[in-house]
Amino acid sequence: MDFLPELASTLLAQMQKPTLAFLIGGMLLAAMSSRLDLPEPVYKLVVMLLLLKVGMSAGISVREAELVALAVPGALAVIAGISIVLLGRMTLVRLRGVSEMDGMATAGLFGAVSASTLAAGMAMLDDVGIAYEGFIGALYPFMDVAALLTAIIMARMAAERRAARGDVAQGGVVAIVGGSGGGQGPIMDWGMIRSILMDTIRSPAISALLLGLGLGLFARPDSVFEGFYEPLFRGLLSILMLMMGFEAWNRLGELRRVAHVYVFYGLFAPLVHGLIGLGMGLIAHELTGFSLGGVVLMAVMAASSSDISGPPTLRGALPEANPSSYIATSTGLGTPVAILSIPLWIALAEAFIGG
Amino acid sequence: MDFLPELASTLLAQMQKPTLAFLIGGMLLAAMSSRLDLPEPVYKLVVMLLLLKVGMSAGISVREAELVALAVPGALAVIAGISIVLLGRMTLVRLRGVSEMDGMATAGLFGAVSASTLAAGMAMLDDVGIAYEGFIGALYPFMDVAALLTAIIMARMAAERRAARGDVAQGGVVAIVGGSGGGQGPIMDWGMIRSILMDTIRSPAISALLLGLGLGLFARPDSVFEGFYEPLFRGLLSILMLMMGFEAWNRLGELRRVAHVYVFYGLFAPLVHGLIGLGMGLIAHELTGFSLGGVVLMAVMAASSSDISGPPTLRGALPEANPSSYIATSTGLGTPVAILSIPLWIALAEAFIGG
Amino acid sequence: MDFLPELASTLLAQMQKPTLAFLIGGMLLAAMSSRLDLPEPVYKLVVMLLLLKVGMSAGISVREAELVALAVPGALAVIAGISIVLLGRMTLVRLRGVSEMDGMATAGLFGAVSASTLAAGMAMLDDVGIAYEGFIGALYPFMDVAALLTAIIMARMAAERRAARGDVAQGGVVAIVGGSGGGQGPIMDWGMIRSILMDTIRSPAISALLLGLGLGLFARPDSVFEGFYEPLFRGLLSILMLMMGFEAWNRLGELRRVAHVYVFYGLFAPLVHGLIGLGMGLIAHELTGFSLGGVVLMAVMAASSSDISGPPTLRGALPEANPSSYIATSTGLGTPVAILSIPLWIALAEAFIGG
Repeated sequence: MDFLPELASTLLAQMQKPTLAFLIGGMLLAAMSSRLDLPEPVYKLVVMLLLLKVGMSAGISVREAELVALAVPGALAVIAGISIVLLGRMTLVRLRGVSEMDGMATAGLFGAVSASTLAAGMAMLDDVGIAYEGFIGALYPFMDVAALLTAIIMARMAAERRAARGDVAQGGVVAIVGGSGGGQGPIMDWGMIRSILMDTIRSPAISALLLGLGLGLFARPDSVFEGFYEPLFRGLLSILMLMMGFEAWNRLGELRRVAHVYVFYGLFAPLVHGLIGLGMGLIAHELTGFSLGGVVLMAVMAASSSDISGPPTLRGALPEANPSSYIATSTGLGTPVAILSIPLWIALAEAFIGG
Repeated sequence: MDFLPELASTLLAQMQKPTLAFLIGGMLLAAMSSRLDLPEPVYKLVVMLLLLKVGMSAGISVREAELVALAVPGALAVIAGISIVLLGRMTLVRLRGVSEMDGMATAGLFGAVSASTLAAGMAMLDDVGIAYEGFIGALYPFMDVAALLTAIIMARMAAERRAARGDVAQGGVVAIVGGSGGGQGPIMDWGMIRSILMDTIRSPAISALLLGLGLGLFARPDSVFEGFYEPLFRGLLSILMLMMGFEAWNRLGELRRVAHVYVFYGLFAPLVHGLIGLGMGLIAHELTGFSLGGVVLMAVMAASSSDISGPPTLRGALPEANPSSYIATSTGLGTPVAILSIPLWIALAEAFIGG
Repeated sequence: MDFLPELASTLLAQMQKPTLAFLIGGMLLAAMSSRLDLPEPVYKLVVMLLLLKVGMSAGISVREAELVALAVPGALAVIAGISIVLLGRMTLVRLRGVSEMDGMATAGLFGAVSASTLAAGMAMLDDVGIAYEGFIGALYPFMDVAALLTAIIMARMAAERRAARGDVAQGGVVAIVGGSGGGQGPIMDWGMIRSILMDTIRSPAISALLLGLGLGLFARPDSVFEGFYEPLFRGLLSILMLMMGFEAWNRLGELRRVAHVYVFYGLFAPLVHGLIGLGMGLIAHELTGFSLGGVVLMAVMAASSSDISGPPTLRGALPEANPSSYIATSTGLGTPVAILSIPLWIALAEAFIGG
């Protein structure tokens, strides 16, 4: 294997690039208990501006993109999102100390996409001069919504099955009292899917991204995009990385209170998921000539776990799940591992495609 | 009428320009109940930076402007502000379901000026390459303060007249108990005017604008103006438009609880007021060669209704008025109508002056 | 004395430069009771970005600096910080109406460094084209930490001595009850120094500065530094100056409630301390060719009093001291005097070195 030394040097150089350096800096500050804090409003503003930028840039590109060049990676992004959740269902949920609800919520969060990780991936590709399709941002909601919907629907179905079994055991009390929600009728319906979908779309992150997409597609925001959103992108990302490193370190402590398997999942799932995304990207590369940078970003999206839009959606849809288990696993381990592994996907994609 | 097709094409092109596109985007997000929210501190910062920019740019221009070129549009801005309030007194206040206090507060708010609408007008003129006097920002306080003062003084005078009539009917009880505030003595005094004036000047919006004006006039902020305030202007305006569209849609619901006439007033008053401003601008054009862009911005200021400085001033000065009627009418209808009608004033001014 | 007219003209020109103009503007707004307010989150963000910028620029420079060129001004910065506190111990603390705790806390705050004043000094030197060593930002923590440590240790030692005397007078009650904290054993220990040092390093200001230093030294943040932090520096500084002028004026009122000597100290100590810093700078100039701009910034740092990192550190370490006396003296008088006296240090350094 020829690419190992190359990988090592890429990794070393990337650690010094602003994106990773600010993330690591934030973790170090948190580790030494710094009182530096960036208030919530700043965080919300930075995330909104980054997502508007990613969305607008995708929207402007989609205007000129051919449908098929977009549809193939879009479908593969959906498959990646669903596969990651199914994989979590077959592994994490079966382990000792993991309740079905908590496990499915965690798998959903790891299938969903982190806007900041995607933005970090874009910045790193720009740094090393690797091109990618402008419409990549438009793939984000495909993978994100597919994963969240799959996880929530599977968790709800399992809960209904359990309730139905309970009904029988307890003489069908719930079925009599509960009415339509009980054991009778279809286990899940379109109304529920629609409500989860709308809830995901209404989340701040997906809203901002879709707004950016819409503006890029139907309006002509090019002047403000080039004069404001594009030049501020790197700087805002550096602030966000700092905050995420800080937050990640502080969340690590919470992991002590949950089952150990979450730590293993948080450390290794992003790598496995990134490989799934890399595979989907390579298929798209074969089918439609999807770019090297596009393959890398598909891996980055798959490796990432949602830190903005996912948690409130899951909290709303699966109130029985314990947020401190899935949020701590995702924010404390999943996100930093996903960001730190971006150079790995660059090296792997180059090894496979030979860029 | 030759300019109707031209107007339609101008309107269509403007809807796609960043300013209107972000406003409409914000309304769409609110309409689909998005949870995207931009916290108050961000809103305050953005408004302050925009007003400092408008003020500084006016101050820098006033330094070189001739007094007469400034005095004529200034006086006409005062006349426009007073006329709009008097017109409201003769129409809105006479209608059924409108109390005198609520009606005068609403008329005052529609006579006052919206900084964001003015900024949007400037950005749109820049977009189409129409020049305007640099000192326009300095006209803002003339129209704004004139309208607020007129509305508050008329409302207070009416309240005192009512109280005086009540005194007679109830045997002069208030006159005996109330002392100086009762029926005797002058119905209003300079102390009151001074206190309203100071309260308006202390409002965040007018403060920021006057500070910018002062900096532009007496200091040399040109380097920071050109390196920071000027380049960020468009981007910050896009954020503000997004927030205002969001806020406007959410305020619309409140209008259901007030009399229907407010809806008509909110929809059509901006257009009538814009025509008054356009007329004043055309007079200034005849008298002192006021520019085409200046005429447009005079109409934009007159059409706009105050959303930042006005409400707290009115709440302080007219505590009896119901804020949900005047704020909902202004923020929910007046401001979006005023911003969306900017292309109309451009088209009309071009038709009259033949730019 | 030939340089007085030059000083007057420098002063006049500086008052119109953005940095001082925004400071004075903020004071004027506060004086007219403006309701303009910039919320805490904005303040925190602006300060963090400025300190990251100052730190990164220092870190990038330290990479290439020779050790001796850095060590000499560093040692002199430590001496300046300690001297200022000792001077305060010998003057302020001896005056009537000043408790030992309050006096030492005030002296510590005036020995510590204000990041915003340092940033203002850098901006003013850039304005007039005077060069300074890039590593200046790295001197900040030397002077700041030295002053805070000296003040806190001296105040704690005095308190222990007092307690010990009290023990004797009251028959050693405290020594019996208090255990290790009583009269026995060393009056202060390394654990205490370490804890004060860590507390200072954890303060938001020093954290952000050290992070910037570390990023500049060990990472390659040059792209985001040149594309974001550097271009935004002047604009963010103008916002900060505005807020500090506002805050300074509002704090002045609190001074009425403390002893009059604080007013004299707040007005004149920055000038005396600036001279101490100027002297240290001139020594460094003789020894290692420290630049004219470096000498000015050494005076600026010494003249400044801490407004961000100092107060919470002192509040934590000296809970017996009255914050309204030391914070009002520093923020209400010390900081504006220090910023307004920057042109004085430029004129004096030029007179001495003949730049």
